[in-house]
Amino acid sequence: MVTIEQIKAARKSVYKHLNPTPLYHYTGLSELLGTDVWVKHENHQPVGSFKVRGGVNLAASLTDEEKKRGLYTASSGNHGQSIAYASRAFGIKATIAVPEGANPEKVALMKGMGAEVLFHGDDFDSAREWVEELAKEKNGKFVSPTDDELICGVGTYALEILDDLPDVEQIFVPVGAGSGVCGTCVVVKNGNSNIKVIGVQSTEAPTMQRSWKSGELLSGEMNTTVEGVATRVAFENTQKIMKKYLDDFLLVSDESIYEALYLLIQHTHNLVEGAGAAAFAGALSVKDRLAGQKIVVVMSGGNISTGQLKKVLDV
Amino acid sequence: MVTIEQIKAARKSVYKHLNPTPLYHYTGLSELLGTDVWVKHENHQPVGSFKVRGGVNLAASLTDEEKKRGLYTASSGNHGQSIAYASRAFGIKATIAVPEGANPEKVALMKGMGAEVLFHGDDFDSAREWVEELAKEKNGKFVSPTDDELICGVGTYALEILDDLPDVEQIFVPVGAGSGVCGTCVVVKNGNSNIKVIGVQSTEAPTMQRSWKSGELLSGEMNTTVEGVATRVAFENTQKIMKKYLDDFLLVSDESIYEALYLLIQHTHNLVEGAGAAAFAGALSVKDRLAGQKIVVVMSGGNISTGQLKKVLDV
Repeated sequence: MVTIEQIKAARKSVYKHLNPTPLYHYTGLSELLGTDVWVKHENHQPVGSFKVRGGVNLAASLTDEEKKRGLYTASSGNHGQSIAYASRAFGIKATIAVPEGANPEKVALMKGMGAEVLFHGDDFDSAREWVEELAKEKNGKFVSPTDDELICGVGTYALEILDDLPDVEQIFVPVGAGSGVCGTCVVVKNGNSNIKVIGVQSTEAPTMQRSWKSGELLSGEMNTTVEGVATRVAFENTQKIMKKYLDDFLLVSDESIYEALYLLIQHTHNLVEGAGAAAFAGALSVKDRLAGQKIVVVMSGGNISTGQLKKVLDV
Repeated sequence: MVTIEQIKAARKSVYKHLNPTPLYHYTGLSELLGTDVWVKHENHQPVGSFKVRGGVNLAASLTDEEKKRGLYTASSGNHGQSIAYASRAFGIKATIAVPEGANPEKVALMKGMGAEVLFHGDDFDSAREWVEELAKEKNGKFVSPTDDELICGVGTYALEILDDLPDVEQIFVPVGAGSGVCGTCVVVKNGNSNIKVIGVQSTEAPTMQRSWKSGELLSGEMNTTVEGVATRVAFENTQKIMKKYLDDFLLVSDESIYEALYLLIQHTHNLVEGAGAAAFAGALSVKDRLAGQKIVVVMSGGNISTGQLKKVLDV
């Protein structure tokens, strides 16, 4: 299991390539929640999400030999962008598998950063299984979205939160595969265990939450349109960390996530993706419990398309 | 006239309260321009614009006696937000005049930061004249949007650009009252004079550009809907700096600014206000001159309302 010492050590690699992100207080959001709200702006990172901290830390941890052999993964989302970005920064060849019919804009972004994008199968599961085999054949490194080096890299944002606001009382984090929430848990629970960490997922894709509740590794329905929290199969290593540390795990509807997204645009003037709004949606759903508390919501990313944005504004 | 030494000295006050902003390269924008484009993300500052650097530097420069007497200014835009923010940070009372019928959302933001907002007259000119008199009566300090301390504060972003990309060849900057472009000129022309600084304004509010061209202080028509570049009367001190240093001053239509805004949202996933998109619109308008160059466009701010954003996306 990842330790806080490993996360602290990751700062050296992360800050060689990336900067800390701001933690801003917003009066408008605080009034909506009836409590003091700070936003952790991971949407300000390059490629628009917290994931890039993990990609950079993973790439920095490779031996020269591993770098030569290249990285393999599957994702057209923030994980894929992150691996493409980090690979370019370290001169590593990235091979990224996506299903046939993957979003052409996102594919173009990864190609623009020099990644080779390969199309395979009907969904991400089949693309991932295939590219994992390909990595073995080619003797390259397959990267799963919850690898320890990724958790250590993304955990650096939680260290920044504690540096900037040591008396925070609750931190709300969106959960996809769980790297962000686990990095946050490890940092917070080994620093000041009075701070609560609350995960948030969509009711339309509750696999990680149900697995956490039941203690079993479930796979299940996934009908959410919120990309960054759309997880079909629970990940073992992140479930283990969550089981040990996580204080609560909320489910909120897609609709309430999009409402939160609208409010965040209105009050912070930042572009936010669905997953990036889930934490605030979660906080809104338990507003009554938060009176008088200092809370942080993690704005994990800003990668929303103009089409999605238009839908959110047309509500 | 402001010197580069004064701007360098301003860093001490600015970085006590604010962080440097990122300068990111975007492949998609580079392809559109046929050259290498970096964006300076001043929209990542608190209150969403570069102006806050100036407000903080000005507040830090006051004597204890001046701080007690308070600051007076007129603006419901980024200048007003910046003075409200800096005043709160330094425990200064801010009095901000706005015309009757000023945008209630923006008024609420300034009040939220503890500023006293006073309504006077039909437009900003009359609100400004009135509050300048009020400052005299009350023995407080009136702040004009082009005060030297403001130029010195905002000039720190240009120092960051040169630190991050020393071989930049052209920097495009939107022009309102001119504090941003002047800070950039003073920094660039006293560092590496081969770098060109290009101002951009709307054809629908060309007063600063025409004054620069003619060498006279003009006032004139102002029909633009792009808030941050809507200047009716030329400012003497910024015109003087621009006359000495500025390489070119482009006019682009409101329509092309909104088109640029759409492209910036699409390719950077950042929320941008009209003025924040003007620099990129200017670069697009002279695309043919830029081939093979390294250019920076300053994204000066992100404060766009959901209503304006909807209009931009509906195009």
